[in-house]
Formats: sequence, structure tokens, C-alpha cells
Amino acid sequence: MLGEHVGPWQRLIARSPEEHRRRGIDVRIETEVTGIDLARREVQWRDHRANREGVEGFDQLVYATGAGEYRPEIPGLELGCFVHTPQQARALGEQLPPVRHAVVAGGGYVGLEMAENLRGREVAVVLLTRAPQVMARTLDLDMAARVQAAVVASGVEVQCGTTLQAIEQRGERFRAHTPGGPIETDVVILGLGSRPRAALAAAAGIPLGETGAVAVDHSQRTPVDGVYAAGDCAEAWHRVMERWVNYHLGTIANKAGRTAGINVAGGSARFPGVAGTAITRICDHEIARTGISEREAAEMGLEVRAQTVETSTRAGYMPNSALMHVKLISERASGRIVGGQIVGGETAGKRIDVIAMAATLGLRAQDLVDMDLSYAPPFSPVWDPVQTAARVSL
Amino acid sequence: MLGEHVGPWQRLIARSPEEHRRRGIDVRIETEVTGIDLARREVQWRDHRANREGVEGFDQLVYATGAGEYRPEIPGLELGCFVHTPQQARALGEQLPPVRHAVVAGGGYVGLEMAENLRGREVAVVLLTRAPQVMARTLDLDMAARVQAAVVASGVEVQCGTTLQAIEQRGERFRAHTPGGPIETDVVILGLGSRPRAALAAAAGIPLGETGAVAVDHSQRTPVDGVYAAGDCAEAWHRVMERWVNYHLGTIANKAGRTAGINVAGGSARFPGVAGTAITRICDHEIARTGISEREAAEMGLEVRAQTVETSTRAGYMPNSALMHVKLISERASGRIVGGQIVGGETAGKRIDVIAMAATLGLRAQDLVDMDLSYAPPFSPVWDPVQTAARVSL
Repeated sequence: MLGEHVGPWQRLIARSPEEHRRRGIDVRIETEVTGIDLARREVQWRDHRANREGVEGFDQLVYATGAGEYRPEIPGLELGCFVHTPQQARALGEQLPPVRHAVVAGGGYVGLEMAENLRGREVAVVLLTRAPQVMARTLDLDMAARVQAAVVASGVEVQCGTTLQAIEQRGERFRAHTPGGPIETDVVILGLGSRPRAALAAAAGIPLGETGAVAVDHSQRTPVDGVYAAGDCAEAWHRVMERWVNYHLGTIANKAGRTAGINVAGGSARFPGVAGTAITRICDHEIARTGISEREAAEMGLEVRAQTVETSTRAGYMPNSALMHVKLISERASGRIVGGQIVGGETAGKRIDVIAMAATLGLRAQDLVDMDLSYAPPFSPVWDPVQTAARVSL
Repeated sequence: MLGEHVGPWQRLIARSPEEHRRRGIDVRIETEVTGIDLARREVQWRDHRANREGVEGFDQLVYATGAGEYRPEIPGLELGCFVHTPQQARALGEQLPPVRHAVVAGGGYVGLEMAENLRGREVAVVLLTRAPQVMARTLDLDMAARVQAAVVASGVEVQCGTTLQAIEQRGERFRAHTPGGPIETDVVILGLGSRPRAALAAAAGIPLGETGAVAVDHSQRTPVDGVYAAGDCAEAWHRVMERWVNYHLGTIANKAGRTAGINVAGGSARFPGVAGTAITRICDHEIARTGISEREAAEMGLEVRAQTVETSTRAGYMPNSALMHVKLISERASGRIVGGQIVGGETAGKRIDVIAMAATLGLRAQDLVDMDLSYAPPFSPVWDPVQTAARVSL
């Protein structure tokens, strides 16, 4: 979008309302559901284009409201730019030419992707994060440090352990207030994370889980008869943590939505859940994680061992071989693999899938060492990096 | 090597004899073991450089003679170029400048890699294979056809269902005789496969398995007390086929050699075996396979179902997204995944590891669909291609 990698933003839309209608789905865009009446089995709606309101009855309801940007209580927040939707990112892109300096609030992958793309347009960037490292929710600090080094090397000024306290307009420019002092800037970009849109469900009496998202079972049914939920607004079972979680990822939404759809239509589908797998690319570094991090294990009271290896993406003599680091995390008592993290060059990241399978299936390091993973010099060292990590974990 | 991708060929040698000696290993190069006397516990050797012979006693013996090029009974075979060792490939590379036309005998990955690199030097290439497609031992014919299309598109003339019957010298050039007639050429390159070097073991009374390679157990012990074997010369257990096989791959040799070494030194290591995983790149196509192919299943009398999907390596709107095909093979009776094959663009191939794990662990298609594999647009469609193949296999 901002990076102009994908062409017109409409390419990101899988199917238009017209295409849905041709499949017999009455899609009404810019029409907001403003209330759910479970007793009457109907929803109240408001068409913002036609400025009309109405009600629509239902036999079964799928609650799929997604997630919205997190909006903390900060004076002047509305002066910042959210980049949660393609439309928001596009608006920012169109605004950018005169921008020479940006403050990015948030050190997660959205903040980092924004910072990277702004650097690509030679904008000076100050990135603020409350955490001690970038990507601190995704990676353990040792692995996050490698990402941060790359981000800093790309020219981003990274301020850790700080927060955006207020945004103030100063003529054409803005002032971002932080505990360390104000920063004068052309734009403040907000990548502060997202929250499930569950308020409408809660107001209707559809129960939420501990995460604040809508509670569902493996069939995507909520505790309310005939009401399903799926996607970013709903919880998902974490197969390694063995608890309900709320992650906002396309894979999960897709699988959960498919499950809900099959079940609503009278079929029988089950979504066993997630393993906490995620992948991204920041400043030419592929970053991936799965399962339980060391930090999460500590929060859960789970005793783990972690081993990190530095190895290469391909045979060392191949000209495009790059460094990669693999961290493998095992439960101390049982030896079973519970998680992993990867930071490295091209082709490093997708190797996380092998660890995701191992963690989901409760394999041990020796089981992973014993797997017959593919090798040829352009693809891997003789010992696949994941297996090298497993070997040192024995 | 021939493609000059890796720099000086010595870079391919992991450790020199001197480095081995510094680690206390008395390496004697160009010294051939000419006989093994199991009763006396000694080997006879011949130092070809010093032109000396002698015997050396042993307590334990590791037989690790590797594999040699297959040399069929063809008149004039010695006029062809083998490319089995780095030295052979280097010699060919030095000879090449005047070469304008080459015949490559063998449609396996060695023959194809030679053909591709010769095309890179603008040499006209005729490739001969006895099989109905290139890579017919690695892939099923439907998947091999995609590789062959790429090879032909690169300008190689591929003659299937033919054989090299004789090589004849004609002045500075050669004549390659085939059932379809003679081909005049500057060089005949032989990529006819490899065979385990087991003759010395057999002569000494060390038993061979049905594959013609040295029989071993999971500790790499042969049936002869104190004698181990590992690498291309030895059999390995195929965990999906559940039979002993003989493959010539670096991963297997490395794992088996490590197992033998640990056990010889008094430790206790076990090599559970292989899954038939292999990967290569030919003409910008990544090619990978694991487990049992449809052809192998037919040979084994195993009833299987196969599903092939055409999908993309990345989200469709990413500019570097490429086509990829995944074939997933399941046992009809049990539904368990027994194999898979991948042909596709950049990043397609390494996805075979997920199928290798599934086949080794006896997972079913639904288990694979349920895995939380990594997704972000630069890395994968929302449904990983392997999972799409699993979904259509349900």
C-alpha cells in the first residue's frame, strides 16, 4: 500500500459486493448493525449512505465484526493517522509527498512496516514503543534485538520504554509529546495494535471470554443458541498453551469463518485452533514465531528451556546464503517442543512451519532431529537450521 | 561448479586432511583399501601416490565407501565425461570453451543440472533419457512433465524413451549412437546415476541387502560384529515405505555417519531412517518430493489417492508470486498421507518438509488442514499451498 508493492489497493479485496451478490449473498456495505435483539431474533441496522434504519430477522447469526484499532485515551489522538484499513493507508500515502519527518507510535509489526516504508521514501522516522524492544509481544527480547538492529540500521530512530502522551497541532505540523520531551513532526502514525470489536455482542448478551473477544467453541458456536462468531472478534483455542486466545490474523479468520459457514449451513466442521504462528518481513529480515515464547512461558508458570543457534539459510558456499537464527523452546519437564522463533535472511521464515507442527503434535527435539527434511545447497545447510536448533536442545 | 556459482571448487570440501589430522584423525588420501580380512581384523591398503601397500589392523571398522557413477556396458563409454566428483566437473568446465554442442545422457537431476548449466554457456544440448519424462524416478509423470516443459523452454532438446548405445570418436568430435540415429557432438556427458560401492564389503563377507548396498541396522551396525557402515554405500530404513532403501543424499550420509561415529566411540545413537525427501532447482523451478510416489505405490501394491492443486507461492497480488503445484498422496484405506511432490517458483520447494513430517508421522489430510502454518502475503496465500492440497484431498 504505502510501499506501493501491490498495485491498486482494490487488488487486496478478494471479492466485491457484486461478486458476492452473484453468489446469492445479499451484501450491504456501509450498513452498520447497531443492535442485536436475541429474544426477537433480529438485528437493527443503519445504512449510512441512504441514511436509513431498519431491522432484519435471523434464524442463525454469525457475528464477524473483526477488530478495530486500539484507541488509547491520549489528548489529540484524532490528529494521528491510523493505518488499520487499506483506505487509511491509502489516505496516508496520498498525503505523504510533503512529509519529511514522521513519528510512528507502536513497535509491533504494523509500526515497523510503516517505519520501513517511510524510510523507503526517505522520510526521517522516530519510532516509539512502550516495550524494551520492538516486536516484544511477538518475539523474546533476544530475538527482537536482532530485528531492532536491522530497523535502526535502516535509519529509524527507535525510542524504547516510552509512550505517546499527546498529539498537538502546530500550524501545518504536529508535536508528539513523550516522557522524554516533545518531538516536532509532519505526521504521527498510530500502530498501537487492535482490539476485538465485541461491544455489540456484549451489549446483546452474547458472552465474551477472558480475552475480551466473543467466546466460542470449536464449532464457532457462542453460548447463545444459533449465534456463531468467527474472525478477529472471536476467541480461538491455542493448542500449545491449551487456553483460549484472541489473535488478529488472516489465517485464523479464514479457518474459523469457514468452520462457522459450514456449520450454519447444516454441515459439521471443527476448528481445532491455533499454535500462535506468525510471520512477517521487516528490513529484509524474515521474522517468524510459533507456540509459546519464553516470556509467555514465564507468564504461564511453565518451566522451559530455550536454545538459539546461529546458522545459514543455505549451504555456506552458496553466494546468496544468509545468516539466520533459530530459537527452540521446550518444556523442561516433558522435553516436548512448545515454541520457536526465527529471524534471518531470505527463505528463513517459512521454516517456522516445521516447528509449528512439532509444537502442535507435542514432538520432542529428538523427533525433530530425526525428520527427513529436504536438503540441497541452494535451499539449506545439510542440517536444516531447525534441526540444528533441535540438536543443541538435546 | 560448471555454473561457477560457488567460486573455487575447494570451497565444497568441508575439511582438509590437515584439519582432520589436527583433530587427531589420521587421514590418508589417495590410499585405497583393497581388501578386508574380517578373521584377522585388518584391511589391506595401497597408497597410490607413494606406490606402497600395507595392512592396518582394526578393532572396529566403519565402511563408508560412498557411491560411484553407474557405468553401463556401452562401447566407448570411456569417451564420455562423468560428473560425479567435483574434480570431474572441474575438468569438464576447463574443457568447455570450444564446446558448442553437448549430448547429456540421463534425465535425472544430475543430467538436468548439467544441461541447464551448459545452456547458460549457450551450448546446444540434446538430453537423452530412457524414461518417458525427465526426473521420472523422482516425480510422478504428471509432475515431471512440468519440469520437462521448463527444460525444453530453456532450449534443451529432450529425447525421451531412448538410450545412449555407444560413443565413437570422430576426430576432435564424438558421435553418440541412439536407437533414433547418431548425434554428432563436441562432448558426451554421462549423468546415468550412481551405485553403492559395496563390492569390497561383499568380497569380505559383509552382507549386502536387497538393494545391493551394505545391510545395517538403526545403529549402523552391519551383521558382522564390530563392523559399521554409513552413507551412500549403506542401506537406510524408509519410514513411510517401511522397507530398506539405498539413496545417495548428503542428509542421509550425514545422519548415518554421525550415528555410526557415536556408536563406534561407545555412545548410543539411533538413526530411525528416511522419508524419501529430496529437493533441487532446475531452470528456475523448485522441485521437491517426499514419501511414496504414485508410481512407487503401484510397485508396492499400495492403493493410494492423489490430488494435485495449482496455487501460488505468495498472495496472488504480490508482484513476485509464482505458480506452484502440490501433489499430495494418501493411502486409500487409512487416509494417512504417504507422500507429496512440489514443482513451482521461488520458495515453493521447502514446503515439502511439512509433507515429509506428515508422512513420517502418519497424519491424515485433515490433520494437515488443521495445522497453524505461517501466513503473510509475501510468504504464502492465506491457505498454505500444502494445506490447499490437503483440503482437496478430504
